[in-house]
Amino acid sequence: MSEGIEWAIHCCTLLAVLPEGVALPGLKLSEFFELPKDYLAKHLQALSRAGIVNTSKGPRGGYRLAKPAQQISLLDIVEAIDGKDPCFQCTEIRRQGPSGVEKEFYKKPCGIARAMWQAEHVWRAELKKVTVGHLTAEAAGEVHSRQLEKAASWLQQTLG
Amino acid sequence: MSEGIEWAIHCCTLLAVLPEGVALPGLKLSEFFELPKDYLAKHLQALSRAGIVNTSKGPRGGYRLAKPAQQISLLDIVEAIDGKDPCFQCTEIRRQGPSGVEKEFYKKPCGIARAMWQAEHVWRAELKKVTVGHLTAEAAGEVHSRQLEKAASWLQQTLG
Repeated sequence: MSEGIEWAIHCCTLLAVLPEGVALPGLKLSEFFELPKDYLAKHLQALSRAGIVNTSKGPRGGYRLAKPAQQISLLDIVEAIDGKDPCFQCTEIRRQGPSGVEKEFYKKPCGIARAMWQAEHVWRAELKKVTVGHLTAEAAGEVHSRQLEKAASWLQQTLG
Repeated sequence: MSEGIEWAIHCCTLLAVLPEGVALPGLKLSEFFELPKDYLAKHLQALSRAGIVNTSKGPRGGYRLAKPAQQISLLDIVEAIDGKDPCFQCTEIRRQGPSGVEKEFYKKPCGIARAMWQAEHVWRAELKKVTVGHLTAEAAGEVHSRQLEKAASWLQQTLG
């Protein structure tokens, strides 16, 4: 699983707490988390393509969430960054070698692939349950007041 | 997820249907699935280290399951091949940048990591439910008789 997923989720939670109508440039997002800006930009573009964030140009331009935080799940973000392909790739080795038979004799996907995909299905379903809105609500009750103050102060200074 | 997982699961299902006391050399396993023998050997060694298969030397030596197929889960095999580390790696980026505070202010793991790990937990639990014994029982009812015959004939010839 790519490190971009951690970065992208954190960026979404920060964007979720921006004041109404305010955007944050990619450079500022990279500064807030001390991440390499070009590499982060690649992931922000993936979020944009997936309709999770949108961008605006101009002196007050930048990224913001494209929809309410309650409508963006961890699954949306994971799929935006790492794609929707199954993690388990079945290469149909059951068809190879001395026991292989003609294609038409394989009526169903291999039982091994089905079992592996079922496990991915429950993983995805679990990721779908958790939204950026959940995460920010939870963080509000857990993050130390000292950190919240520092974040608020940085935001105020950055947004001018 | 590494391709070795597909290979390893298939190899375990083949070893599960060997006659009592019979072992299959790595070369024969690679022949049965048309897999590169050196690369497969690496994965078989990982299964061996995890206590899933064991090896015997000599003219009738080779691999066999180290315990009953009903006691080997997909999770055992996945962890043998890809390790037990979480797929989601939390690098604690919440501590970086202008809002970072002293280590002692982070009382709990980050909520983002907790949510990602919870999803992995259900994935692992699902993989744990399915054993090599389940897979071979299911395959026995699904695999075409033509393929079963070819496999049996190859085994007979190979085991001599």
